[in-house]
Amino acid sequence: MSSARHFGLTVGQLPTGPHNAITDVAGVMVGHRTLSGNGLATGVTAILPHGGDLFRNKVRAAVEIINGFGKSAGLMQVAELGLIETPLLLTNTFSVAPCMEALIRRAVGENPAIGRETSTVNALVCECNDGAINDIQAMAVTPQDAFAALDSAASGPVEQGSVGAGCGMTSFGFRAGIGSASRQIGIADASFVLGALVLSNFGRAGDLILPDGRRPDAQRLPQAEKGSIIVLLATDIPLGDRQLQRVARRAGAGIASLGSFWGHGSGDIAIAFTTADHVAHRPKEAFQSIGRLDDDQIDKVFQAAAEATSEAVLNAMCAAKATVGRDGRSFPSLADWLAAFAPDT
Amino acid sequence: MSSARHFGLTVGQLPTGPHNAITDVAGVMVGHRTLSGNGLATGVTAILPHGGDLFRNKVRAAVEIINGFGKSAGLMQVAELGLIETPLLLTNTFSVAPCMEALIRRAVGENPAIGRETSTVNALVCECNDGAINDIQAMAVTPQDAFAALDSAASGPVEQGSVGAGCGMTSFGFRAGIGSASRQIGIADASFVLGALVLSNFGRAGDLILPDGRRPDAQRLPQAEKGSIIVLLATDIPLGDRQLQRVARRAGAGIASLGSFWGHGSGDIAIAFTTADHVAHRPKEAFQSIGRLDDDQIDKVFQAAAEATSEAVLNAMCAAKATVGRDGRSFPSLADWLAAFAPDT
Amino acid sequence: MSSARHFGLTVGQLPTGPHNAITDVAGVMVGHRTLSGNGLATGVTAILPHGGDLFRNKVRAAVEIINGFGKSAGLMQVAELGLIETPLLLTNTFSVAPCMEALIRRAVGENPAIGRETSTVNALVCECNDGAINDIQAMAVTPQDAFAALDSAASGPVEQGSVGAGCGMTSFGFRAGIGSASRQIGIADASFVLGALVLSNFGRAGDLILPDGRRPDAQRLPQAEKGSIIVLLATDIPLGDRQLQRVARRAGAGIASLGSFWGHGSGDIAIAFTTADHVAHRPKEAFQSIGRLDDDQIDKVFQAAAEATSEAVLNAMCAAKATVGRDGRSFPSLADWLAAFAPDT
Amino acid sequence: MSSARHFGLTVGQLPTGPHNAITDVAGVMVGHRTLSGNGLATGVTAILPHGGDLFRNKVRAAVEIINGFGKSAGLMQVAELGLIETPLLLTNTFSVAPCMEALIRRAVGENPAIGRETSTVNALVCECNDGAINDIQAMAVTPQDAFAALDSAASGPVEQGSVGAGCGMTSFGFRAGIGSASRQIGIADASFVLGALVLSNFGRAGDLILPDGRRPDAQRLPQAEKGSIIVLLATDIPLGDRQLQRVARRAGAGIASLGSFWGHGSGDIAIAFTTADHVAHRPKEAFQSIGRLDDDQIDKVFQAAAEATSEAVLNAMCAAKATVGRDGRSFPSLADWLAAFAPDT
Repeated sequence: MSSARHFGLTVGQLPTGPHNAITDVAGVMVGHRTLSGNGLATGVTAILPHGGDLFRNKVRAAVEIINGFGKSAGLMQVAELGLIETPLLLTNTFSVAPCMEALIRRAVGENPAIGRETSTVNALVCECNDGAINDIQAMAVTPQDAFAALDSAASGPVEQGSVGAGCGMTSFGFRAGIGSASRQIGIADASFVLGALVLSNFGRAGDLILPDGRRPDAQRLPQAEKGSIIVLLATDIPLGDRQLQRVARRAGAGIASLGSFWGHGSGDIAIAFTTADHVAHRPKEAFQSIGRLDDDQIDKVFQAAAEATSEAVLNAMCAAKATVGRDGRSFPSLADWLAAFAPDT
Repeated sequence: MSSARHFGLTVGQLPTGPHNAITDVAGVMVGHRTLSGNGLATGVTAILPHGGDLFRNKVRAAVEIINGFGKSAGLMQVAELGLIETPLLLTNTFSVAPCMEALIRRAVGENPAIGRETSTVNALVCECNDGAINDIQAMAVTPQDAFAALDSAASGPVEQGSVGAGCGMTSFGFRAGIGSASRQIGIADASFVLGALVLSNFGRAGDLILPDGRRPDAQRLPQAEKGSIIVLLATDIPLGDRQLQRVARRAGAGIASLGSFWGHGSGDIAIAFTTADHVAHRPKEAFQSIGRLDDDQIDKVFQAAAEATSEAVLNAMCAAKATVGRDGRSFPSLADWLAAFAPDT
Repeated sequence: MSSARHFGLTVGQLPTGPHNAITDVAGVMVGHRTLSGNGLATGVTAILPHGGDLFRNKVRAAVEIINGFGKSAGLMQVAELGLIETPLLLTNTFSVAPCMEALIRRAVGENPAIGRETSTVNALVCECNDGAINDIQAMAVTPQDAFAALDSAASGPVEQGSVGAGCGMTSFGFRAGIGSASRQIGIADASFVLGALVLSNFGRAGDLILPDGRRPDAQRLPQAEKGSIIVLLATDIPLGDRQLQRVARRAGAGIASLGSFWGHGSGDIAIAFTTADHVAHRPKEAFQSIGRLDDDQIDKVFQAAAEATSEAVLNAMCAAKATVGRDGRSFPSLADWLAAFAPDT
Repeated sequence: MSSARHFGLTVGQLPTGPHNAITDVAGVMVGHRTLSGNGLATGVTAILPHGGDLFRNKVRAAVEIINGFGKSAGLMQVAELGLIETPLLLTNTFSVAPCMEALIRRAVGENPAIGRETSTVNALVCECNDGAINDIQAMAVTPQDAFAALDSAASGPVEQGSVGAGCGMTSFGFRAGIGSASRQIGIADASFVLGALVLSNFGRAGDLILPDGRRPDAQRLPQAEKGSIIVLLATDIPLGDRQLQRVARRAGAGIASLGSFWGHGSGDIAIAFTTADHVAHRPKEAFQSIGRLDDDQIDKVFQAAAEATSEAVLNAMCAAKATVGRDGRSFPSLADWLAAFAPDT
């Protein structure tokens, strides 16, 4: 699996974590279910903030809506309460419903009191439109596909490119999909990590600017940006609610640094969560003590968020294989372009 | 079907429309599909801003999230673009997914270019948790139920109370559900109307304050507010994007005037739309001229929005029949209380 | 000084603190500077979250803009960072500038590094338009008046009604101004307090609904709502950033329960802060531990915020004396109305 | 006066207007008042959306708060009502108050009914902290300086660099200040223009990325970003309220494309306004017809906003002269760097 660094592309200044992936944040797991063939090129990607029961032990989170032309489900409650209580599923635009169903059934299975003795559960599902490659009208994803993605989730290296929800996605005229990256951050003699995972499906052909200033031209087409990008940011740094929201916002800077102006038709959404302290569903104590970073140190986290977002997009594009869309349009591989047009040596 | 006015309760000062319902706004239609028996008390309610193809002729709209503890789908895109492009469906918390599926299939059926030659479609589904009465874990609602609600939509009087999505809903310890009301507004020698439709499932027992100052005590229980209320506001007044958003916000004043402080566990959402000017999916002209009310006149619209929201809640409660919840708890009828405790005559 | 409770009016169910004022929150201090005579009826009111150096020891806070037709200064930074670093000053609309100047000069005097070796300082000044009674064009308030209000700040009972910034304010056709109230909240065997202080200048004549359902008609006039209300909420309960914001929002419910629909021309702003844990300007430690209430307990705080806001408005109106406005219009005293129209006994 | 294009730097693809400045939007005027010497390096810059009485003929506008660490005044009401009713003044952080006073006095002078027979006026003043070069504690700016800036406002070429409010500003370790740029946009056989004017004072030394990929290293210093940037976007394109807000948001993409991640200590604010249709203070008609662009065409406007913002920052840096800060630190000129390090030819 190629990555941006295989081609000498580095984003920013901070060092990466061991896997250069969201799974560098301890406990975070990623799984994929890919559907391809018969006109399909789609799937589900599952991200688990931790391996336990998220309904009972929620993680604190925040949402930033960079451009709200999208159909994600569950964001409103995260924005209000600052809590994630299910795994996050990524899929295509028309498959949000089966993924919601899967998350609800899974949570009820684990906690039969849901919707009866206790509150209901907020299913968190984000999407991009893979209709350029995938037969989205087939609505082929089922709750079983979502279970399969969830069941396959693991820590360690993250499979990237045209896999899972990313199978039919494109960016800047190239094929894209799932990408990940991470940054290590030293604070007060301790080492922390921030990881990004993107479902990258945004950017007009011709608009991409590489970190070294080059502009791969892809197959320039006069089409509008109709894509979307979902950015998930995980960290083990203790951050207050407001700080998490500000970190999520910096995903927008990472996207813009690649040459995008957040096009009208693109649903650009970021979710940031911290694994530093969980929130119990029914805490035993009325008060909880949570950590908060000194704001004077937060620029490092902002920088990490922007850098990891950018590099995750490039990694998605480097890992994806060239393909041909439903209408015959080619979506080349950025890895092929980079191999062919290596900088002067 | 009882209403608040049958018991002498009037909210505010503005006159009602002919049906005192959201359907007083020309073109708006409402339909219900009710599932009851075998532990079920749930359903779907459909609201159509107009009878045509909403994807091709969108209505301008805005969203106000009063308290975001909820699982509605489709709000983010309405907030970004200010447009509604499907009917609005109301249902229970665990049935958002089948309603989304129904709206997508219906839109694709009418417009096969969706997700292929043109953009995807934003399904708009709002929900409350009817688990106190309904077996919500049964997840009994299907896309076919949503189609049935859509197919039954009609103008004229609106069936209210324990019907459609409102079948298993409660408010302030009483049974509640679907309610509607409207207000006529004179502006510059012309007459306009604003109508509200609510899915009312909020309010702690004992907190209700009637417009005449009385406080029906219901069956006071020490339970927290875990309900929600969805407020849909329709009008034929030309309003700018920002004005629509400000009108939607006034639903919160209408709710608060009944004694609620927008409890933590309640997903309180308002959507306002105007039928005054539609927006074509692919307009022929690059520019469109839309109407806008002089801000100095907008207090009448704010007042109408608050009044109609309050009265719609009372109408839901007056139309609903007493029942017993899943755990044996009684949910009396406000109509019975009002009949028994008529003010001194 | 009359209060709502002197006339038998109680709002809600929670018990008040010892002074029924914002100063029931330990450390909070209030001071006034009143300018009257020669056409003036205006001033400055200062609220100090604690008696120390707020720039060095900031308090955590949140802002809710209920209706943004207003000219307050400093809210944006509070919304971004969640911190208050100066006292809060209230004044009339055209006197925000001298109050800003006073807060900056005072902070620089205490911390000469401001704007040189360290960051600048965010002056927090809120306002209502007292032009119906006061000659606002005179722009009579000076930085010295602001210093006088700050210097007079004290704990203990709060002078209310037509005093300080409240001297020329009106509500619902009655004279109003500064009001305060508080609520005690028991959580986990400990007792906490939430206090409100309002600068009340909102509400159309005829719209007021008293807690017992009566509607004092005042001198009904066909004028639009052009007022504003500033609501400050203080508490000693440990609350996270997001929780503080949600508490601030409930001020809107308190206002609406009095019969207001948040009129177009009214700048309705709420600020909530907690004294439970301060944030140092340059903390010695990179991480800080802050308290957070279990969300399942937060309804009590919401209820206290709504109740204290409502009662603070009524207290402002009960403490204010009748007067005549600049154009000869009468602004009667609600205390006089309540004395004259006592309920049947 | 040097500009980025003098050094071969172009941003993006769209053509500039004749002056490559905000004044390419017909009617927009800019004026400066500069204070320098005796430790001062500060001033006021005035931007007039049109040359008439803005209180009587307001322009429609929207605000985007990219990072709210700032002390601008008047933004809240613009966000609520979508209207600008005074000129916009830019100045240093501690001089917001005298500029507010000047705008109020000027508006009252032109419209004596303000604050008496009609509403008050919302003074719009934005700021950055020039304390690295200017003795900000001197608080040297007076209302007379603001009047001087307003009186000198003119259409045509815009003086840029270390002038007016920009006199003491820096960006990315270089001296910066006022910059401007514009883009022409063809829509439906008509030609429109979008212009940007920035007060540029943001960016850590070493973070700047030029449009050709080079990274001028300036004098790299380990200081945090404590700057700010104010971006004003003007256009003659008819845009709805929501569209204006979305255009303002794209200023953030323009900033990020230069290498910034919107640092914690930077108050990054954008205001967008359209001159296409004015809104009268007291309209004769209850309804107004306003223009709105087809959303499918809006990407051009987004792109223009991002490009013009970026280029305006570079123009500010190219026009500013090298200087030495209050603590002896050098702030070199980007123009000098570009002249010295011309790309290979």
